[in-house]
Amino acid sequence: MMQAVCLMSGGMDSSTLAYVAKDMGYDILALHLRYGQLTETKELECAKKIADSLDASEFLEVSLDYLTQIGGSSLTDPSMKVHDHGEEEDKGLPNSYVPFRNANLLSIATSFAEARHADAIFIGVQSSDYVGYPDCRPEFTEAFQRLIDTGTSDEVDIRLQTPFVRLNKTDILRKGLELGVPYENTWSCYRENRPACGTCDSCFYRLEAFRELGIEDPIPYRKAL
Amino acid sequence: MMQAVCLMSGGMDSSTLAYVAKDMGYDILALHLRYGQLTETKELECAKKIADSLDASEFLEVSLDYLTQIGGSSLTDPSMKVHDHGEEEDKGLPNSYVPFRNANLLSIATSFAEARHADAIFIGVQSSDYVGYPDCRPEFTEAFQRLIDTGTSDEVDIRLQTPFVRLNKTDILRKGLELGVPYENTWSCYRENRPACGTCDSCFYRLEAFRELGIEDPIPYRKAL
Repeated sequence: MMQAVCLMSGGMDSSTLAYVAKDMGYDILALHLRYGQLTETKELECAKKIADSLDASEFLEVSLDYLTQIGGSSLTDPSMKVHDHGEEEDKGLPNSYVPFRNANLLSIATSFAEARHADAIFIGVQSSDYVGYPDCRPEFTEAFQRLIDTGTSDEVDIRLQTPFVRLNKTDILRKGLELGVPYENTWSCYRENRPACGTCDSCFYRLEAFRELGIEDPIPYRKAL
Repeated sequence: MMQAVCLMSGGMDSSTLAYVAKDMGYDILALHLRYGQLTETKELECAKKIADSLDASEFLEVSLDYLTQIGGSSLTDPSMKVHDHGEEEDKGLPNSYVPFRNANLLSIATSFAEARHADAIFIGVQSSDYVGYPDCRPEFTEAFQRLIDTGTSDEVDIRLQTPFVRLNKTDILRKGLELGVPYENTWSCYRENRPACGTCDSCFYRLEAFRELGIEDPIPYRKAL
């Protein structure tokens, strides 16, 4: 059976992605990363529920506490403010950017995939998404495929799958609803473990996607925009 | 002043490399990675001494314990045998290969470099070295440079420096002796914290380099070949 390492944050996108991988016939090796983000307890709980619902054959939880030591992001540094949507001035990167985070996640995923002889890695990045994180661009994931091809044993052939890279949140939600993703077991808020704040960038775009499809988001919110 | 993140394992190659970076005019940001290898205590001690001797402006120690969870290498899995030099059959990868390890190390180094606005990352890989690890090939480091260029903020320009990639151990030792590297504060053995075994691949090639230059290695050995 084909196996895929799925990066599962517990959020809406990566949960939908794992359902897509399963639907494509892959057995799931779930990989969940903690990196000192404010909502890591809730995200872990959600990732586990989604992995269970997909009968994942392994659930690997890895701590990247060093991203907190390195700092430089409002997601990992409690002294930096998590902005409300629209509050941050529109110049350069948002302060929620964690330097080169996706390369760290994908390197771990590749080590995991190589050790298990898996066929693919699924990551839910989107370039057309709300923020211009450089490590979400298609050029970045293409460069990562080249890195995998040159840096792993010639005996393995691991494909980096990013089916969402040119989709937006509404497209993803539509796909997930078709596949029956239990969105009550997903979490997107940057700020709180429960209820979701409703106003950070991540909540804003999640709520917008549900609104566009005319459906109610099943998770609890403190305050909706 | 120019700054460089230097991957410092505490071994002969990376210690020499940090001296090369300093000689090129860089201020050193030392990055030491533990990944559950058998000799991590000794390697940390050595990396710190070398960083101190170079007046490094920061020493970041990061634990990659997940490489032990992932497994698949004699360096991180105590149930696998660390072979003597020449003992392993010559087919495929040596069992000391840690899947995609260098991509993990370089991703952390890049996060660190981006957060500090450093100019370069130095890593002491050698393709002409004793083993065919795929993540030491020039194609791999070239692919990683492309990954850095696409995956970091447009405000930074980080160069991946691998001046040893086409050198052998003897060339490196010669260079280090010119620069006054204190080799008594470096450690290469895969097996022991003290004395070095003298017979694993890493000891074998280190001793060979010293022998070729007609100098005595200042660290203690249990048994030399």
